[in-house]
Amino acid sequence: MKFGYQLLAKDGRARRGRVTTSRGTIETPAFMPVGTAATVKAMMPDSVAATGAEILLCNTYHLMLRPGADRVEKLGGLHPFMNWSKPILTDSGGYQVFSLKGLRKKMDEHGVVFQSHLDGSTHELTPERSIQIQHKLDSDITMAFDECTDWPATHEDAGKSMRLSMRWAKRSRDAFVDRPGYAIFGIVQGSTYADLREESAKALADIGFHGYAIGGLAVGEPKKDREETLAAVEPFMPADKPRYMMGVGKPQDIVAAVGLGVDMFDCVLPTRSGRTGQAFTCDGPMNLRNAKFAEDTRPIDAACTCPACRNYGRAYIHHLIRAGEILGPMLLTWHNLHYYQDLMRDIRAAIVENRFDAWRKMFEARIGLETKEDA
Amino acid sequence: MKFGYQLLAKDGRARRGRVTTSRGTIETPAFMPVGTAATVKAMMPDSVAATGAEILLCNTYHLMLRPGADRVEKLGGLHPFMNWSKPILTDSGGYQVFSLKGLRKKMDEHGVVFQSHLDGSTHELTPERSIQIQHKLDSDITMAFDECTDWPATHEDAGKSMRLSMRWAKRSRDAFVDRPGYAIFGIVQGSTYADLREESAKALADIGFHGYAIGGLAVGEPKKDREETLAAVEPFMPADKPRYMMGVGKPQDIVAAVGLGVDMFDCVLPTRSGRTGQAFTCDGPMNLRNAKFAEDTRPIDAACTCPACRNYGRAYIHHLIRAGEILGPMLLTWHNLHYYQDLMRDIRAAIVENRFDAWRKMFEARIGLETKEDA
Repeated sequence: MKFGYQLLAKDGRARRGRVTTSRGTIETPAFMPVGTAATVKAMMPDSVAATGAEILLCNTYHLMLRPGADRVEKLGGLHPFMNWSKPILTDSGGYQVFSLKGLRKKMDEHGVVFQSHLDGSTHELTPERSIQIQHKLDSDITMAFDECTDWPATHEDAGKSMRLSMRWAKRSRDAFVDRPGYAIFGIVQGSTYADLREESAKALADIGFHGYAIGGLAVGEPKKDREETLAAVEPFMPADKPRYMMGVGKPQDIVAAVGLGVDMFDCVLPTRSGRTGQAFTCDGPMNLRNAKFAEDTRPIDAACTCPACRNYGRAYIHHLIRAGEILGPMLLTWHNLHYYQDLMRDIRAAIVENRFDAWRKMFEARIGLETKEDA
Repeated sequence: MKFGYQLLAKDGRARRGRVTTSRGTIETPAFMPVGTAATVKAMMPDSVAATGAEILLCNTYHLMLRPGADRVEKLGGLHPFMNWSKPILTDSGGYQVFSLKGLRKKMDEHGVVFQSHLDGSTHELTPERSIQIQHKLDSDITMAFDECTDWPATHEDAGKSMRLSMRWAKRSRDAFVDRPGYAIFGIVQGSTYADLREESAKALADIGFHGYAIGGLAVGEPKKDREETLAAVEPFMPADKPRYMMGVGKPQDIVAAVGLGVDMFDCVLPTRSGRTGQAFTCDGPMNLRNAKFAEDTRPIDAACTCPACRNYGRAYIHHLIRAGEILGPMLLTWHNLHYYQDLMRDIRAAIVENRFDAWRKMFEARIGLETKEDA
């Protein structure tokens, strides 16, 4: 099976597509649950698959430190190790190395030297090393090694950073071993500057990747800046390849990005929120820790078919969260991942039926453009 | 459906039986997983049932404090609250009140006043109050309120304590509202003194309960004393009622107690051990945290059919435990509960086929009389 992207339908800029890999197909727009350390926290892999997830994201930074890329390779790669037979995308490790500032020891054209957050040991990541590690992990979709530009950044700094990432992208592409059904994605950088984003997208297209990601957004910039940047860069991203917006995000942000032509997403929000008592619903987030749920026997969401909603009332989940019981995160994580996959199913159906804008208006009217708990 | 006990087969003193309740039958000898706060930690209820468990134990002390007996009653009782439709046994709360010494404020003939470990608030437990709370929880098997005698205790102290428990047993029985399919069990006390145990067993039989428990053992006394005490009291426990040994225990201790005529057991060991990285196997315990498992791709136990053993190698579970990932406790708890239910299935089959002693010898030769990690 060759790696590929098929555009099935378009509605405005929104795309309904299908990514093929050697381990299965991914209907897009798609949401990828995050399995940082080779596990989607508090979930069995078959439960993750039951929500509808067709691909996971795992983190190179965490896995290279523990259990180590050589060890995962020796054990047959990530898929048998973690009992997940569908595709896996790995990030490059760059985001963690740059966002966990205290860990970075040295950075130059060659790459980055950093300290492990686990034991302080020293490690190096370069484009070549990152791609090699992802190969050892047997990742289906490898991400190019890039520098995630700080926000805010001046035009000059953002340009310098982006051009370094483009040189690293070329080295990443060269280091990647082409194998049928496997892919490497380049990452567009350039902060919120439309001209830099255009330059970056064109540079990556010249190198030639199996897919293209938008990096360096969802790092603190206003929603408006994010969407303007995305709208400006989209025309320069190859239409015959999948587009992946990294680290996004809230349901509203995913819907907006789909409207601007993005196909793939990942975010820790559904899993992390689940561990702190927050449930996603069509009407916005619900914090189950809240005392008002103590005697509320209704399900989190009456329309949801996940096991948490089918079998339990809010009062019980409230009790579990208050008591610090593991089953609380288990149920809420399942619900939240189910919610995200339901959202993607709704999005895909709306695009195919050419009613994405109407669906989006209803969705936004109900959930609010900002989440209620943000407001 | 009337509550009842049917003796199906006997092999020496070992009994193969069946307990009937309004919520289903329990094949004995049976092991009851512990769901302290209305959840078996790190397990979905359907997974607990999938291991073969037919009854759970929940803790009155914890539930009366959070979410509160009135609240559970208002929400329809424990079964719908926690999504467990099979029988539930609740303890009386006495064990916690007496074992968490710092919490006890006052104790007299009437009952015990104690402070909540959660918020320091003051509560009272008396035989009447304990039975009432268990009624509100809608427990299928209610336990009489007793004093758990310290070990070691002088003959005089143990006698005084046991006689107080017998007066409380009478008050508990009187406070219990008889309902078809529901039961109340009395608890034999008397420390390791055979004469006191005999006196206690006879006193309870005179009052008349639906079942009889052995309390005040597995509290630190040597295994030999425990087994001698059990052997001495067994002839005085009504043969037509189920016998429950509270808080036991290690696989070896369960097997020994079955050999002395006990039918029911509960213990936090399989669940608590699972959360700290320990797996039970036919060859004794295995600590998955141990570095020697880091590249061991074999299942915990090749003969085990639980999801942890069917789908994962030791190396992965080792990684999960080292990384503090929730899936580690989830998989190990499932495995351990499966192990315990497999053990009970083996025991029941051996009794029916009149080969319990031979089976026990094989079991003990393989696992060792004391666990290897104890030695």
